[in-house]
Amino acid sequence: MADNDRQLKPSFGLELPSGDERERSVCGHCGFIDYVNPKIVVGVVAHWQDEILLCKRSIEPRHGFWTLPAGFMEEKETTEAGAKREAYEEARANLEILDLLALYNVSHVSQVHIFYRARLLSADVSPGPESLEVGFFAWENIPWDELSFTTVRWALEAYQKVRHETTFVPFRNPE
Amino acid sequence: MADNDRQLKPSFGLELPSGDERERSVCGHCGFIDYVNPKIVVGVVAHWQDEILLCKRSIEPRHGFWTLPAGFMEEKETTEAGAKREAYEEARANLEILDLLALYNVSHVSQVHIFYRARLLSADVSPGPESLEVGFFAWENIPWDELSFTTVRWALEAYQKVRHETTFVPFRNPE
Repeated sequence: MADNDRQLKPSFGLELPSGDERERSVCGHCGFIDYVNPKIVVGVVAHWQDEILLCKRSIEPRHGFWTLPAGFMEEKETTEAGAKREAYEEARANLEILDLLALYNVSHVSQVHIFYRARLLSADVSPGPESLEVGFFAWENIPWDELSFTTVRWALEAYQKVRHETTFVPFRNPE
Repeated sequence: MADNDRQLKPSFGLELPSGDERERSVCGHCGFIDYVNPKIVVGVVAHWQDEILLCKRSIEPRHGFWTLPAGFMEEKETTEAGAKREAYEEARANLEILDLLALYNVSHVSQVHIFYRARLLSADVSPGPESLEVGFFAWENIPWDELSFTTVRWALEAYQKVRHETTFVPFRNPE
């Protein structure tokens, strides 16, 4: 969940391709147009009984802060598969994706964060390479002052609001 | 809404960066890692009274087929702003975004298609540069055999199902 601000490749410069409405990064040698578009972060609010799975980050940004399992969606996977993969990579968690909890726009860094509700299939979790530790937290024990990102807080608050609902309209950025 | 299969830039080759779990396109000269991730297509099912706005495509792929206003989300915009922008670019339509209708995964081309319900603010529409013509269609007049993409058909069918609902769970890929 890092920043992905626009970065020009070495031999590339900004040009307005024919028929386009904005400048793109174009290779000065071969004319290749490198379209850059927002990236998708997929994650889960996953519960085991009444507790929520959080991971303490071992990487920058926000090293040492607690986060929901989440990360950049990869090519050729679905949003649900990406969310499951991230939960395994960060917490060795095996879970079932339930439903779409929230879609947040983080437009200043050109990201869309998509969170699913999920159910752990076992309490057997352990830190993956991007986590210092992992743990289950009851609502009253969530370390609010040590959360990594705003959308993590939003997703937790959204989760709590619909915790006992089976159907609901997914959340978007708070007004 | 074109294919975006992975394409290597001229001086780039596939390498496994340290700490990563999959090969990335890395510049042989400078080591720049070009992360490629799924792209987001944002679009609208927009109505004026009881009719739905469609555009006939003037570009490939699917030149001459009818589509919902939709296209690749751009940097630094929100999903809702992108959907509005595409409706203006393709149909010179001015509209109000209402709610999230559907999120579809098109994983074989690494795309996520996000459709919103929208309400036209006026019936004053006209073809933008990517459209041959634009028009309003009652449900029984939709040109099903001349639609451009599967997700366009899915979004129209989803729209019809919740046409009279004010709140609903957004649709995903049909089973």
